[in-house]
Amino acid sequence: MSSKAYDKQDFPVANVRRFLEPGPIVLVSSAYKGETNIMTMGWHMIMEFEPSLVGCYIWSENYSRELVSKSRACVINIPTADMAAKVVGIGNCSGRETDKFAKFGLTAVAASKVAAPMISECFANFECQLHDASLIDKYSLFVWEVVKGHVARSPRYPRTLHYRGDGVFMISGSNTRRYRRLFKPEML
Amino acid sequence: MSSKAYDKQDFPVANVRRFLEPGPIVLVSSAYKGETNIMTMGWHMIMEFEPSLVGCYIWSENYSRELVSKSRACVINIPTADMAAKVVGIGNCSGRETDKFAKFGLTAVAASKVAAPMISECFANFECQLHDASLIDKYSLFVWEVVKGHVARSPRYPRTLHYRGDGVFMISGSNTRRYRRLFKPEML
Repeated sequence: MSSKAYDKQDFPVANVRRFLEPGPIVLVSSAYKGETNIMTMGWHMIMEFEPSLVGCYIWSENYSRELVSKSRACVINIPTADMAAKVVGIGNCSGRETDKFAKFGLTAVAASKVAAPMISECFANFECQLHDASLIDKYSLFVWEVVKGHVARSPRYPRTLHYRGDGVFMISGSNTRRYRRLFKPEML
Repeated sequence: MSSKAYDKQDFPVANVRRFLEPGPIVLVSSAYKGETNIMTMGWHMIMEFEPSLVGCYIWSENYSRELVSKSRACVINIPTADMAAKVVGIGNCSGRETDKFAKFGLTAVAASKVAAPMISECFANFECQLHDASLIDKYSLFVWEVVKGHVARSPRYPRTLHYRGDGVFMISGSNTRRYRRLFKPEML
């Protein structure tokens, strides 16, 4: 299932909310001194449009925490619903013992602005540089600046996984513009 | 459409991820010295299970920011997809000029642990006390502790609104436990 190859295009970083604000599970990829890793992550939020800031919770027990702290970079990748088994598998094991790209048959592609690899099989890849490290100790909160976006040309919106805990996923449903006319322009 | 009356039950605060982690648009209700307000909010994340912490972005231009800062409390309410027009309307106007409960035909119900009112027509109501005010100035980030939860007995999962910007909502889709068997117990 991971042999799909997306044709991706540059995506404006101020618009990452289109894919992150609905709350999908994401895969965070990282690299440091020849080691790479991937983690499954559900605790994140948009914090600003410009600069494009995203807050992510990365626990001290996660091997990725070491890599992202030392490299001060990561890629936030958006997997689609058909990747659910891999998403769970990636969350079940530790990068301390496992090369997750190899184990889960995922393709690492060089990013353009950070050393962390992008996951080719994911619908979108957002290259991130650490914007603020001051909340890591207290809240395990990494404030990232998205510095480059890559998003598949098609489909327009992916079917994403949204986690509820206890092994239950919500799968994203339909997208609607029918309420758009109700918004004041400045509230869009 | 807002005449529906939910039969709600107490919900364990450590489990609020079930409804918040999938990333729905929420309505934040607040009160201070006889004023009440409601705001539409999409930038939030789970930050801890116990205490049950939720981070929310509440901009300095929002009238609600005054009320929640001064009262140090709010209720995070989860509206369902059928409330979309009200959710947009609430985001379009300011509590400085508008009594939003009256304008949108919503019912304020007394919460049990905070002075902020709960919105009866919403599927779930999470009473919150301000846990940490130190990130408000820099990031407009309020770290709330959920101190009491109220959730409708039925349906098991609501159809929620997830915002993509530019007037587009994603409506939550199906829920599945089919991947549960793949999780290691400690990863659930």
